[in-house]
Amino acid sequence: MATEIFESLDRQLQAQRELYMELHRTPELSMEEHRTAERIEGEIARLGLTCQRIGGTGVVAVIENGDGPTVLARADIDALPVSENTGLDYSSEVDGVMHACAHDMHTVALLGAAAALAENRAAWSGTYIALFQPGEETAAGAQAMVDDGLTEKLPAPDVALSQHVMPTEAGTIGTVVGPVLSAGDSVRITVHGRGAHGSMPHNAVDPVVLAASIVLRLQTIVSRETQPGEFAVVTVGASNAGFKSNIIPDRAELLLNVRTYDDAVRERVLASIERIVRGECEAAGSPHEPEFEYYDQFPLTRNDAEVTDTVTAAFTEHFGAERVYEATPVTASEDFSRIPDAFGVPYTYWTVGSVPAEKYRTALERGTVAQDIPANHSPFFAPAIDPTLETATRAHVVAAVAYLGGRARP
Amino acid sequence: MATEIFESLDRQLQAQRELYMELHRTPELSMEEHRTAERIEGEIARLGLTCQRIGGTGVVAVIENGDGPTVLARADIDALPVSENTGLDYSSEVDGVMHACAHDMHTVALLGAAAALAENRAAWSGTYIALFQPGEETAAGAQAMVDDGLTEKLPAPDVALSQHVMPTEAGTIGTVVGPVLSAGDSVRITVHGRGAHGSMPHNAVDPVVLAASIVLRLQTIVSRETQPGEFAVVTVGASNAGFKSNIIPDRAELLLNVRTYDDAVRERVLASIERIVRGECEAAGSPHEPEFEYYDQFPLTRNDAEVTDTVTAAFTEHFGAERVYEATPVTASEDFSRIPDAFGVPYTYWTVGSVPAEKYRTALERGTVAQDIPANHSPFFAPAIDPTLETATRAHVVAAVAYLGGRARP
Amino acid sequence: MATEIFESLDRQLQAQRELYMELHRTPELSMEEHRTAERIEGEIARLGLTCQRIGGTGVVAVIENGDGPTVLARADIDALPVSENTGLDYSSEVDGVMHACAHDMHTVALLGAAAALAENRAAWSGTYIALFQPGEETAAGAQAMVDDGLTEKLPAPDVALSQHVMPTEAGTIGTVVGPVLSAGDSVRITVHGRGAHGSMPHNAVDPVVLAASIVLRLQTIVSRETQPGEFAVVTVGASNAGFKSNIIPDRAELLLNVRTYDDAVRERVLASIERIVRGECEAAGSPHEPEFEYYDQFPLTRNDAEVTDTVTAAFTEHFGAERVYEATPVTASEDFSRIPDAFGVPYTYWTVGSVPAEKYRTALERGTVAQDIPANHSPFFAPAIDPTLETATRAHVVAAVAYLGGRARP
Amino acid sequence: MATEIFESLDRQLQAQRELYMELHRTPELSMEEHRTAERIEGEIARLGLTCQRIGGTGVVAVIENGDGPTVLARADIDALPVSENTGLDYSSEVDGVMHACAHDMHTVALLGAAAALAENRAAWSGTYIALFQPGEETAAGAQAMVDDGLTEKLPAPDVALSQHVMPTEAGTIGTVVGPVLSAGDSVRITVHGRGAHGSMPHNAVDPVVLAASIVLRLQTIVSRETQPGEFAVVTVGASNAGFKSNIIPDRAELLLNVRTYDDAVRERVLASIERIVRGECEAAGSPHEPEFEYYDQFPLTRNDAEVTDTVTAAFTEHFGAERVYEATPVTASEDFSRIPDAFGVPYTYWTVGSVPAEKYRTALERGTVAQDIPANHSPFFAPAIDPTLETATRAHVVAAVAYLGGRARP
Repeated sequence: MATEIFESLDRQLQAQRELYMELHRTPELSMEEHRTAERIEGEIARLGLTCQRIGGTGVVAVIENGDGPTVLARADIDALPVSENTGLDYSSEVDGVMHACAHDMHTVALLGAAAALAENRAAWSGTYIALFQPGEETAAGAQAMVDDGLTEKLPAPDVALSQHVMPTEAGTIGTVVGPVLSAGDSVRITVHGRGAHGSMPHNAVDPVVLAASIVLRLQTIVSRETQPGEFAVVTVGASNAGFKSNIIPDRAELLLNVRTYDDAVRERVLASIERIVRGECEAAGSPHEPEFEYYDQFPLTRNDAEVTDTVTAAFTEHFGAERVYEATPVTASEDFSRIPDAFGVPYTYWTVGSVPAEKYRTALERGTVAQDIPANHSPFFAPAIDPTLETATRAHVVAAVAYLGGRARP
Repeated sequence: MATEIFESLDRQLQAQRELYMELHRTPELSMEEHRTAERIEGEIARLGLTCQRIGGTGVVAVIENGDGPTVLARADIDALPVSENTGLDYSSEVDGVMHACAHDMHTVALLGAAAALAENRAAWSGTYIALFQPGEETAAGAQAMVDDGLTEKLPAPDVALSQHVMPTEAGTIGTVVGPVLSAGDSVRITVHGRGAHGSMPHNAVDPVVLAASIVLRLQTIVSRETQPGEFAVVTVGASNAGFKSNIIPDRAELLLNVRTYDDAVRERVLASIERIVRGECEAAGSPHEPEFEYYDQFPLTRNDAEVTDTVTAAFTEHFGAERVYEATPVTASEDFSRIPDAFGVPYTYWTVGSVPAEKYRTALERGTVAQDIPANHSPFFAPAIDPTLETATRAHVVAAVAYLGGRARP
Repeated sequence: MATEIFESLDRQLQAQRELYMELHRTPELSMEEHRTAERIEGEIARLGLTCQRIGGTGVVAVIENGDGPTVLARADIDALPVSENTGLDYSSEVDGVMHACAHDMHTVALLGAAAALAENRAAWSGTYIALFQPGEETAAGAQAMVDDGLTEKLPAPDVALSQHVMPTEAGTIGTVVGPVLSAGDSVRITVHGRGAHGSMPHNAVDPVVLAASIVLRLQTIVSRETQPGEFAVVTVGASNAGFKSNIIPDRAELLLNVRTYDDAVRERVLASIERIVRGECEAAGSPHEPEFEYYDQFPLTRNDAEVTDTVTAAFTEHFGAERVYEATPVTASEDFSRIPDAFGVPYTYWTVGSVPAEKYRTALERGTVAQDIPANHSPFFAPAIDPTLETATRAHVVAAVAYLGGRARP
Repeated sequence: MATEIFESLDRQLQAQRELYMELHRTPELSMEEHRTAERIEGEIARLGLTCQRIGGTGVVAVIENGDGPTVLARADIDALPVSENTGLDYSSEVDGVMHACAHDMHTVALLGAAAALAENRAAWSGTYIALFQPGEETAAGAQAMVDDGLTEKLPAPDVALSQHVMPTEAGTIGTVVGPVLSAGDSVRITVHGRGAHGSMPHNAVDPVVLAASIVLRLQTIVSRETQPGEFAVVTVGASNAGFKSNIIPDRAELLLNVRTYDDAVRERVLASIERIVRGECEAAGSPHEPEFEYYDQFPLTRNDAEVTDTVTAAFTEHFGAERVYEATPVTASEDFSRIPDAFGVPYTYWTVGSVPAEKYRTALERGTVAQDIPANHSPFFAPAIDPTLETATRAHVVAAVAYLGGRARP
């Protein structure tokens, strides 16, 4: 692989660090990333490239560079409603908002990769699409870009790439074939009873008892209806009904979260939830149909085998085998896959470590990873800038050049 | 009241005792009271009266005695599948069958009352129907007599009377207006799942879990759907599914018993049972409709206020106020009421004590009634012949003469 | 009974109506009845009597009038956090506060009775205690008076009396021997789990499932542990846990309300609640003991047989038998009984109808009482001033004179 | 590999077929395999070898053949209480007993392998132990052999081998590293209530409701306490309490079956079962401690990676890659592993297909495998003798020679 690209990367690293700290100081919530989008546009313009807005605060730059494959690389750019508590001197300056999921790192790394490719066109040929997606945390951004005509506004890629900074050893990269992130679905269920004074249950249809029956019955979806060993989670994260001891309320609300690694399993689980809730409402003599509102729905992220193998081989060659490991699928969710799915193209999604090696290994040995190392979404989450930022930037370059460098054919 | 009737009673008491012991030795199960029915026919013939069979082993004698009201008095005649363990020298000679519910006493008392009235026609006028009913224990006998044309074969009574020997103080009589015995309904519920090997729950619809959900949900009929303080019992006496730990069965069977004191409550409870079971089967994805089989259905016994007041006044006059008390409704059930209900006439049903006074009072004081005094259906149940038999016989006479003696008008 | 007392009543009726409307316009919440207490003090002073404050806003006047029994009559004086919606021209002028439980009527009636007795001392002898109690709605007021030395500050009564305006036919009075109002106990139960991300239930102890199990199990206290027909209510009026679908919370809160008519039943029910909650927490592997906080505890109101019979006879003589009926015990609760219980004296508590006769009877015939007649605590509750106010005032006089008039000996 | 061994196999195939049909006709139940054991002894004697009985009906022959590794190969020999319904002309002649799990095929294959090795000692060196184990179906046989001094009576093997005929494509072999068969544990749980008449629930502690609560709560072990995707099954295969609708029984019995692939998971699940049952008994106020009786406990079968790789490579070389596939772990259980575990040596366990290729492939395409192909334990289970018997025999030889042929070192 052309070494000039990596010399470019070395030269821009200090500027990347500064941009990262700037973005970290000025986080913006999902679908409100106005300043961030402008900042990205400014960086792209600085490279002499043009870009377009798609889906409101989404920004896309297309680098056309002769014949060859088209590679789409995506970074998410939004922050979280978390109050930062890291004590870092570049901590968030926005009250109650924090880049607690490293999307600032994703953004800077993709900008760096785009810059390096733009500056070294002799080293590759084809088309590179650098896509900066808003609103990942609320599952709204990828869909907003698709709804805004993504597939018409961009050339069709041959392959799509994305990555995520994780609380694993800094400098390492994890890849895995197949499901890497679960599908996630939230459901708000409202069931109806009939209110009455607490001393007159015979005049009521008690929604507290109804909700309790539903909660217990929902357990059977995993315990009895799911093949043993098949991944499926049905969590009732919230169950709320009533305010006073002596007033039987007229409804109860349940908030469910479902996680699956397989579309057939997902559909079965969602259907079972509705079946159980309806049956329990009938058993209760509920006076109105239950209501189901689906929200925060994240698709399954399932890495293509061929793309993943290609990218893994390139990582191994570049970083050395000791820095590339097989990632374990996690139950977090992402909306990245909506983008390649809109084009109907394969993709891979890898993880980049962010915890100083010695700290991580010590915690691992002591079995204290969960306590000692703040995870994504924690107010204490603080990726080590070095070597995380460089690794993430190089990973984007290496994965892209695996295709654009003329070796792999997607 | 004409004293000659009671002189008759005194004369026949020793013969009654002997007949009682004879019947006690030779009990017959419900609807198989062939020998007992013949014995009753023999006694009636001895009085110079005729009688008819109604409902197989039911026997009825009608004593017509001029103008006046018609009074129907009923005794039940069947025994129970219980192995007697009283040690009495007139214990049952039939293995596994016992008059453990004193129907032998009821029979002899009614025969005695009929004899006294037949012998002393000058002391009353009207019509006396002595009805000996089979199959009370299985709720089959009264219905069998009704189905056999009871209302066409007999003159319509103005009032109906029945009594039961109970483990209370011998020599006393209990009466009460309104519900005295509960309605009782048994239901066999079969719910269907789909069987599978125990290690493959996803191929099954688990009827064990379904039955468990139903059992818990049924609790809400009493706890939430019944007015607080309203009498209602829903007992799941049996819940059975499966034979092996590692085979998920394909069905579960529940046996329910329902007790109520009010027809509207009864109908609501039975409807709620079906609603809950159907709803739970839907929640479970049960492949077949549940099945409901009703059996052992006893009607409510609700004493008419006017009849009860009339009879109570007569008892009080005859026995003295200290021997007549207000009975507490019990949750046992009876099919007697089907007979007056078939005619559409009012009735009363009273209780007759059978425990020697001192024994009863001692147990009461010590709070050991439940332990010390064997109740109906116990293999140790043993009514004191004296004064129970005489009291029960006189009670029938006194209650009848309250109407037939020309004082009360039904 | 001396007719001069009732002539007094007739003379003051118009002033009573005006005072009632004034109080109705200016309701005050429980334990904050400052203006109301002053107004009562003013009325008592107008009669030439002295009074004392007990329990903050409680006011008591003692009328000593020679030898004879001591009768304590009590009225409650607080209003409710309800926004009046009756459209009456004397509607509440205080936002969100309303005399929706007729305590204003109780207050004016007792003031009227005290005035009539004070003005006609020749017609009775003994001692009359007119006690105006704050904070009935929160179960705080009677206890506050007791805690403030009630039994030392007042002469010991022989008997205590209280009444309540109810949505039954105006002009009628209901009395009943035995339990007339249930005991009421509220319990706040906090159960502890261990929180976790919704996709990692194995790291959690799920309090949502735990709370559901408890709710279902609590049903068995009434359905299985309480004698059929025995009054007991266990309502879970509120069950709340969690806020987000994908976060398993670390605790759940249940608010229970218990109603009973018998102290032994009450104690058993409360013990069963604790046993069930503790057992379920163990089954769940809950990391901390559950917490039980008891609040809003109302004692049982159980009318003394002799007092009730005496008062009922007096009512019947004064109002006529057609206006005095046997009240049905209701499941509302009251703290009145804490006052006679503090003295250890018998009491009776009766109800006074407030719905114009024709309106009530029509609704009764149509079976639309629940829909057509606003009940206590409703924003539409509006007792007919006439004849309710006069009936309630006379009832207090009649009941008191039953003792003070020299006929009955308590 | 020495071809002479396989020539031996070809020569004995017809005799093997006949022995197979003979054994199939004369099945014997677990631990009663007297005739079968004698038949095996006869065959071994025919080879000029001696053998010993271990564990009653277990038979072991040791073939010593110079220096080299020791390989233990095991076959199970017992039949099932199933009534054969295959219609085969060599169907079981024993009423209600059938070789429905192909242990007859296992037996004949191992005898064949032993014969071929005994006849061709020049082709290998080391020690071959042919072990015929009784009572696999009841989990009793391996333990019986261990208890009878297995490890003292035999030379310690370096590696242990076993196989099972399955309803997959005949002629193919499945191997897999790691857990291949689950651990299986059955538990009989007795919970105690207090019996009473069905109309008097307040005198009872209702075990029907208690059992229902337990069944629902047990669902949470898999749904909430097990890591999503981790294999664990908790089946309540039987839940039985009571016989009559109107008698509340005094106990309930639950039969549970637990399947796991990991010892830590297994221990956690069993502990959770006890915790839940005890907690629910406390919640119910159960008068006696619950009882737990563990039975039919099968250990985990976890194939050693190195042994499995060695054997898989040998199978692939001998049968061709197209006949060797990666098996999917199944939730059936086996007691084979008790034998290598007693010696502390590694093992592998593979599967041999038994359904004619075309039939299997057609069913697979149609998605009708479950319906069309009778599985083990079915009365219709009928392995195709050819090529199953030959494949199974060769598999034993090939796996053994992988070690004894001088190539692999265990």
